[in-house]
Amino acid sequence: MNLRLFTPGPVEIPPRVLRVLAWPQPHHRTSEFRATLQRVTDGLKELHRTQGEVFVLAASGTGAMEAAVVNTMSRSDKPLVIAGGKFGERWAAILKAYGFAPDVLDVEWGKSVSVAEVGRRLDADASITRVFATHSETSTGALHDVRELARACRMRQRVLVVDAVTSLGVHPFEQDAWGIDVVVCGSQKGLMVPPGLATVSLAPWAAGLIEGERPPRFYFDLRKARKSAPLGETAFTPPVGLVLALEEALAMMREEGLDHVHERHRRLAHATRAAAQAIGFTVFPAHPAHAVTALLPPEGLDPSAIVKRLRDTHGIVIAGGQDSLKGRILRVGHMGHYTLADIQLVAGALEECVVALGRPATGARTAAISGWSSE
Amino acid sequence: MNLRLFTPGPVEIPPRVLRVLAWPQPHHRTSEFRATLQRVTDGLKELHRTQGEVFVLAASGTGAMEAAVVNTMSRSDKPLVIAGGKFGERWAAILKAYGFAPDVLDVEWGKSVSVAEVGRRLDADASITRVFATHSETSTGALHDVRELARACRMRQRVLVVDAVTSLGVHPFEQDAWGIDVVVCGSQKGLMVPPGLATVSLAPWAAGLIEGERPPRFYFDLRKARKSAPLGETAFTPPVGLVLALEEALAMMREEGLDHVHERHRRLAHATRAAAQAIGFTVFPAHPAHAVTALLPPEGLDPSAIVKRLRDTHGIVIAGGQDSLKGRILRVGHMGHYTLADIQLVAGALEECVVALGRPATGARTAAISGWSSE
Repeated sequence: MNLRLFTPGPVEIPPRVLRVLAWPQPHHRTSEFRATLQRVTDGLKELHRTQGEVFVLAASGTGAMEAAVVNTMSRSDKPLVIAGGKFGERWAAILKAYGFAPDVLDVEWGKSVSVAEVGRRLDADASITRVFATHSETSTGALHDVRELARACRMRQRVLVVDAVTSLGVHPFEQDAWGIDVVVCGSQKGLMVPPGLATVSLAPWAAGLIEGERPPRFYFDLRKARKSAPLGETAFTPPVGLVLALEEALAMMREEGLDHVHERHRRLAHATRAAAQAIGFTVFPAHPAHAVTALLPPEGLDPSAIVKRLRDTHGIVIAGGQDSLKGRILRVGHMGHYTLADIQLVAGALEECVVALGRPATGARTAAISGWSSE
Repeated sequence: MNLRLFTPGPVEIPPRVLRVLAWPQPHHRTSEFRATLQRVTDGLKELHRTQGEVFVLAASGTGAMEAAVVNTMSRSDKPLVIAGGKFGERWAAILKAYGFAPDVLDVEWGKSVSVAEVGRRLDADASITRVFATHSETSTGALHDVRELARACRMRQRVLVVDAVTSLGVHPFEQDAWGIDVVVCGSQKGLMVPPGLATVSLAPWAAGLIEGERPPRFYFDLRKARKSAPLGETAFTPPVGLVLALEEALAMMREEGLDHVHERHRRLAHATRAAAQAIGFTVFPAHPAHAVTALLPPEGLDPSAIVKRLRDTHGIVIAGGQDSLKGRILRVGHMGHYTLADIQLVAGALEECVVALGRPATGARTAAISGWSSE
């Protein structure tokens, strides 16, 4: 069965990108590949809206998070982690693995952080030098206002490190203008490329952050990446095929126009929420991101039964909840090259599942989607 | 121009494997992908000849080397590094980055380590607990006798960690029978898959090595990998496409028969050396590996001129030397799915370059290759 992915990533790969993966791959120490890597790096800078640096790593997003930690934290730094889900908590776990004792601002899962509260924490503790946050929290579907967070951090001269794994290519993002020091991302989300490539970016003013006494670092040592970058190289063998694929995906975004890409994701996310609510689901997060729609099922329905029926009957793969949300929510991903037709498809299938599991059809779904169809 | 790769890796990817990369990719948390990962892991165990564990990481080979260091070294361990080239020296660099002070046994580049000397070092210093070695040293083309090395280590109850990045799938390898505790490998060499996937294996008796007080580790923490493995999962998002590609590459090796694969590499390597010598090159290493042939050019010829002409005139990419061998040697890779026809092709092109650069043709090349053609 040909399964369709509506997962919170890895996302469905566009055929244009898949095609590139089947091309014979150049060696990475050739002028041909060096030029490709330069173009990809430039495209990534455009996407981050930064004049700084973007480094490409062979790793998953967690590898890029670890790179951000080991390259920016010194023994005297004190981190504040904003944790409102599995990925926020991962910042704390990585920091702890490296012997740091992060202050954790626990945000209720599904809620977004109060920037005012972050400000109070920073004001109350002058020893906090680094803030680790998540833009789009994939485990809860919540969006955190990293623009305001950056303002709060800049104002107090604290460094902000943002996990933008499921927001780049989905939400408007302005690293330099908003004042975000460090951003990490992964290939398999809004970038529409298979997993295995991750990035760390440094804003122009944050270049010095990676110098000095740091925890042990070798594979993720960004000083090595920085030395290789002007040559169109990476410190260690890059994931060549994924770099070529990313070049194609970035070309697709450029052709569509980045503003259009963001606007399309906004419409798809709203359409998904509207349709799901019309069928009887409740949107879980208070401030939902446009990457993933997290839903509470209609009262009494088991999310895993819906996930299973979607897969077995409709050939659609969505995700359930993780950690404390396991068995409670459903997560429908719509990052990448989806259109409103795809939302019709997944919403129709969701409704069929609900009806098959004993709920009445409401007939309100199509009308709910239609409001978000304007081109 | 369609370039042919005869590089020391990333190698030319077989069309069968490229084709798989263009397939729609399953989500990694599905029974379909879990079954794939289990099959790939079993195939890797076959390749290592181990009944132990093989963990798949999203990283380059250096990431796997770092994983081996951070999972096996405690503060009280003292490492001995056998360094006879760039990759042997990398073990020392990683260990130093983590605060260890390795004893380094410097082997002249191009030579292979004397196991007797290792034995003397181990006998002279009982505090050495770990030995880090390279099987096929890609920078010099030299093969180290890890079988005898393992015997020397086992006899003295020292742990042996081997970089088999360019030997697995090329040379016979018997992790359990030879007694090698830990082995690291990467996808882009004998495994015939694009770069971005790396592995660490632990022999059955070495399972406990990764437990206990260790340097900071998170992304490369093999305890996490071990927890996920029985579920057919990896600790973090795996490089899904590369795992599918590796399944195909392992199937190709199984169809050919692993013994045949090794024997074919032996013939190709001997044919390459014979042809190169007939043209006037000198084989650089004393005990050459079958992965890469490192050559000194005929007296007075500049290796980089040969690399350039091979590329510009013949569409063939080979590599020059690295670090202290830069500008001194040429390296011709023949790992993967090459046949004797490919060796004819690269040898013919090498001869053309030599003649074009002013040396006489000897006519001895074809006869030299022909001795290695027996099926």
